[in-house]
Amino acid sequence: MESEARLIIASGEQSPDLYYRTGFLTPDPYIYAEIGNESFMLLSDLERDRARKEGKATHILSTSEWEEQARKEGKRGLSAIAALFLKSRGISTLTVPYDFPFGLAKSLLSEGFSVSPAEGSFTPQRALKSREEADKIRKVQEGVEQALRTVSGLLRKSTVRDGWIYLEGLRLTSEKVKFVLKEELLGHDLIGQHTIVAGGEQACDPHNEGSGPLPAHLPIVFDIFPFSEKTRYFADMTRTLFKGAVASRHRDLYEAVLSAQERAIAKAAPGVDSSLLHQAVEERFAELGYTTGEVEGRMEGFFHGTGHGVGLEIHEAPRVGKTGVPLLPGHVITVEPGLYYPRLSGGVRIEDMLYITPSGAENLTTYPKDWSSVAIP
Amino acid sequence: MESEARLIIASGEQSPDLYYRTGFLTPDPYIYAEIGNESFMLLSDLERDRARKEGKATHILSTSEWEEQARKEGKRGLSAIAALFLKSRGISTLTVPYDFPFGLAKSLLSEGFSVSPAEGSFTPQRALKSREEADKIRKVQEGVEQALRTVSGLLRKSTVRDGWIYLEGLRLTSEKVKFVLKEELLGHDLIGQHTIVAGGEQACDPHNEGSGPLPAHLPIVFDIFPFSEKTRYFADMTRTLFKGAVASRHRDLYEAVLSAQERAIAKAAPGVDSSLLHQAVEERFAELGYTTGEVEGRMEGFFHGTGHGVGLEIHEAPRVGKTGVPLLPGHVITVEPGLYYPRLSGGVRIEDMLYITPSGAENLTTYPKDWSSVAIP
Repeated sequence: MESEARLIIASGEQSPDLYYRTGFLTPDPYIYAEIGNESFMLLSDLERDRARKEGKATHILSTSEWEEQARKEGKRGLSAIAALFLKSRGISTLTVPYDFPFGLAKSLLSEGFSVSPAEGSFTPQRALKSREEADKIRKVQEGVEQALRTVSGLLRKSTVRDGWIYLEGLRLTSEKVKFVLKEELLGHDLIGQHTIVAGGEQACDPHNEGSGPLPAHLPIVFDIFPFSEKTRYFADMTRTLFKGAVASRHRDLYEAVLSAQERAIAKAAPGVDSSLLHQAVEERFAELGYTTGEVEGRMEGFFHGTGHGVGLEIHEAPRVGKTGVPLLPGHVITVEPGLYYPRLSGGVRIEDMLYITPSGAENLTTYPKDWSSVAIP
Repeated sequence: MESEARLIIASGEQSPDLYYRTGFLTPDPYIYAEIGNESFMLLSDLERDRARKEGKATHILSTSEWEEQARKEGKRGLSAIAALFLKSRGISTLTVPYDFPFGLAKSLLSEGFSVSPAEGSFTPQRALKSREEADKIRKVQEGVEQALRTVSGLLRKSTVRDGWIYLEGLRLTSEKVKFVLKEELLGHDLIGQHTIVAGGEQACDPHNEGSGPLPAHLPIVFDIFPFSEKTRYFADMTRTLFKGAVASRHRDLYEAVLSAQERAIAKAAPGVDSSLLHQAVEERFAELGYTTGEVEGRMEGFFHGTGHGVGLEIHEAPRVGKTGVPLLPGHVITVEPGLYYPRLSGGVRIEDMLYITPSGAENLTTYPKDWSSVAIP
């Protein structure tokens, strides 16, 4: 008889590991355990019937009977129910996710279980996407590209006056553009949060989401990373667009980022350490004389990682930065160098998503990034 | 010198406690500590400049210098940085949220800290909303009601044929209605996930989100609970609407739920135990002969709680169910009884949000629920 179990207590919403295993979403936490080849979902009556239709587990049980027993022992809560259930199966040793709630872990420890957080990911296989998963991500990406094409069309129809962009007589704002983007995303069942539409000075802070009128002539960063309400997979793309005439220092900034990105993408292949992509970006910027550091109390240059894994989370394994990991077939990573110079009112970032294959890397992003596509007259 | 700190390591996205304290959102986790009257945010360079503009804390620091020191000691990660920082301030005892990651807690324990999860909520004051917070929730609720009015207008324009609802020659589907709802919500900067539009048999499972053509004559449950991208507050409303002629057994079901809800709402006042609202619902259903239990392997009747707190989380304190807590001025709770009978193809739920005041309760929901408003000819 098995004495070890792997345990998750979370809602499907909070825990991509749980969703990956069960395919089931709940707003409230429930108990999930793997014992040998069997898997158990323990849910309230409210969720149990739905789980029987939608959930993946070898056993789908109701917590009701355990609740009754816990109450008799003067205990309550999910840890008490989990303890009763696990003891009934002869379990004494638990492996839980790294982010398992500390309060629950303490309760289980005091019930006599040995409890260890998983070293690293609880579900390492999540980092290695099947073709089917990559297609789900590509599908999300299609919606992202369609949304940006719509906005690009608006920029084409816009005019420039006194350094600002006008559409139908009104200044075009970040808010308006974000609304258009999100509406397009919605039509693809995608939910976009924290979508970035930031121009000029605002674009120099990579996480500033942007607000107010959009400047002509200066780089405008569009960073769009929704997830599908249906599949729960994310996609992530950044493009930097311009409206109107562009000064050469800003075009140079754009071309520098593009060439650094292309060098990094060219390195992506199975077996290559992901830190080499980051190095390629840093080397290219150094070569072109773009320096990084704190100037007048603000960071400028290139001061974030080159990329990250994308899947059921927007930021997941593997990392692509100063410290890396060997890339493997199935990894989906972003490659998103950027340069930010407040003194130039210029921030540029360009981001594609790559799917690492046995023989190289497939770019899941098809939206163009050549100068004639991003500089809109 | 203080030797105790309250510590959160999370992203603002994941942790409403952290957002409540700092007003700052990040996609990635960072370190937040309260020591006496001082508060500290320790962030990457990427986030630090933005935090200085948007965040609330007495000290906003960069993790860079600590990272360097951690590396020298052969350590890495947020727990190593947190340990170095806390030791530099003479801290030995930590209180963390109940859901603090177990893996991080273990690292801090092995660094010699005493670490305890908070008993109950880390931020109990979150349950007691100021007038300003209640107004933020009401603002979200206005968007919810506007969205449902739009859908009600579509139902009015619809026709009935062979038991189905038709709009402009096509069967009206859950998917179409959800799209209309979400589009309206988007116009109010609201993000709606898991919006429920479920009719007939589907409505008998309270968490079934609904799909396919919507039935005429039978109850259709609309449960809409978005949050504001700006304020992060949720609102939550359920209405059950009908299209076309309605059989008396379904109207009776509706009136039963409405009268149970009204009795529960009438009980809501400061000092009253929230379980009394649940009891009032159960008593009313018993009085009217609506029984609850498992029939042919499925739950029917009333088998969920009567309500829950609403705020920065969709489900938060206080609970309104079999076990309750005394209601206090500032609580925002839902009152949402339902009756579900698969054998009748009928599920009805009606949900309002109440703001408990010093003298009673204010209903934040204004959408009508009388028969003539919900039964659309």
